[in-house]
Amino acid sequence: MKLAIIGATGAVGQEVLHCLETLNIETEQIFLLASARSAGKNINGNIVQDLEKFDWTQVDHAINCTGSDIARDLLPKISAQGVRVIDNSSAFRYDPNIPLVVPEVNADAIGDAMIIANPNCTTAIATVALWPLHQAFGIKKIIMSTYQATSGGGAAAMTELISSTEAYLENKPFEPKKFAHNIAFNLIPHIDTFQPNGYTKEEMKVSTETHKIFGDDAIKISCTAVRIPTLRAHSEAITIETDKKIDPVLARKILSQAPGIELVDNPDENQYPMPMSVSGKFDVQVGRIRQSLVFGDNGLDLFVCGDQLLKGAALNAVQILREIM
Amino acid sequence: MKLAIIGATGAVGQEVLHCLETLNIETEQIFLLASARSAGKNINGNIVQDLEKFDWTQVDHAINCTGSDIARDLLPKISAQGVRVIDNSSAFRYDPNIPLVVPEVNADAIGDAMIIANPNCTTAIATVALWPLHQAFGIKKIIMSTYQATSGGGAAAMTELISSTEAYLENKPFEPKKFAHNIAFNLIPHIDTFQPNGYTKEEMKVSTETHKIFGDDAIKISCTAVRIPTLRAHSEAITIETDKKIDPVLARKILSQAPGIELVDNPDENQYPMPMSVSGKFDVQVGRIRQSLVFGDNGLDLFVCGDQLLKGAALNAVQILREIM
Repeated sequence: MKLAIIGATGAVGQEVLHCLETLNIETEQIFLLASARSAGKNINGNIVQDLEKFDWTQVDHAINCTGSDIARDLLPKISAQGVRVIDNSSAFRYDPNIPLVVPEVNADAIGDAMIIANPNCTTAIATVALWPLHQAFGIKKIIMSTYQATSGGGAAAMTELISSTEAYLENKPFEPKKFAHNIAFNLIPHIDTFQPNGYTKEEMKVSTETHKIFGDDAIKISCTAVRIPTLRAHSEAITIETDKKIDPVLARKILSQAPGIELVDNPDENQYPMPMSVSGKFDVQVGRIRQSLVFGDNGLDLFVCGDQLLKGAALNAVQILREIM
Repeated sequence: MKLAIIGATGAVGQEVLHCLETLNIETEQIFLLASARSAGKNINGNIVQDLEKFDWTQVDHAINCTGSDIARDLLPKISAQGVRVIDNSSAFRYDPNIPLVVPEVNADAIGDAMIIANPNCTTAIATVALWPLHQAFGIKKIIMSTYQATSGGGAAAMTELISSTEAYLENKPFEPKKFAHNIAFNLIPHIDTFQPNGYTKEEMKVSTETHKIFGDDAIKISCTAVRIPTLRAHSEAITIETDKKIDPVLARKILSQAPGIELVDNPDENQYPMPMSVSGKFDVQVGRIRQSLVFGDNGLDLFVCGDQLLKGAALNAVQILREIM
């Protein structure tokens, strides 16, 4: 396999390289591509090339780690030349002809698609945790509140958390650039743009993408997406209503055997999912599992944490690559 | 009115003094009481007295800002001597003979009670926001996820957030004392002790206390309580199902006219409730109001922030005092 990584110098691009190595993905050659500005950079002996001037006949696979604008223009062109592309952007996620894939859930949706979309980070993390429960109990409703790290807004947003925190501690003024408000010791219930129905795009992604990945539009899904002053890893407080009766003991058993999940549910030992403990990990942590006080025998409350740069982006892309190589 | 403030030197005690002044509560005399250790301290010219040696015939009203242990022992004694006490602790909240009061909701429950309980901070904030909606639409289900500030764990917990953050930024090790884990750039889905049903005591308080304050045990209530690295003010992502049809326009109108609420719901201008903007404010902020994607015409999603030291504690106590003086 000859692989191009488009946007190799960004945070997700770097994590893709790390995942390729950790998962021992065998490649004949890896081409690192980025804008002309980054061309010439040396990453572990591999020279970054200008994306605009790249000869696409040199590769058979690609992972796109740039934004939707580049993806929308570039990916149809290179896939028409025979390059199979996994796209981290949201450009093609809602295209009915493009599979949206979380390998633990719907690897079979890939088929012979030339472009395969990687879901939104929050959705990828949630679907890994919820799919085994959906298979066993039939999920009817999902109510989710998120606790999302600043790095979800890019490396500069993470840096802004650090600098605004330092400014606060030194009693200095700070003017936010990446966030609408100062994020230091604060939270912002606003990620991505507001839609006419009052939900943000981020919140609607969770609903729309989960429907597509689960292949089930009947599930009612509502999300409140909140940015909190953490650096890495997203958390999700989730309540589900199920068709069949569900109980915490059985749910724990099923989740403990499911792929991509680390069950961390030992309250007596103060063990539950946390950003601190899941950062850098491939598995999604699931814990705080309890019978829902709202939906009774047909409901469960749980808490999920996942590294949004890994399962929420780079790792999921590399797992898709492993399926198609 | 001759008033004693028990535990006057703590964070809530200090906020009580601030609220008494801001609300122009007229008192003949205020006695500041605390443990022997704090006796003799001068707070704005008022000398703190030893709680153990205090002559209770000097006062007719008291506000308790100490914990449950002291409350359980002391309050029955002094109320038997004719002192009406408002208790910030959880000691008597679940006693069927003691009213649990949020003045905007159930001031009429006070009657001639000699001990009146102040609710848990998270509950006080939520009930102010939800009561007008319950009256108009009949709430059947409440699903809540909280984003709680470190100061909810006391002044030392707030200090621990600052010191652990400084340690992180200076790349130094830090050993948490007040929290089960390091809270700096992290979150902890664990507040108060775990109960046999898997919920924490904090989460169960929201359910039990809301039932009592609303006088309605039929509402199904589930909460996930999470400590986040903020200093002050609690936030709550809330989904409700209602008996009658509800819509965001009508809900906004009702909430904008309700007491104790500041409607902050202008997404186009990036205006929504935030800890940063509600800290130090008496009103609870409500925003992000939208039709629930899960409960449809009979459901609403909303986001609520309130200063848990004010409406969640000191302010509510002083508002109760105003009702009984």
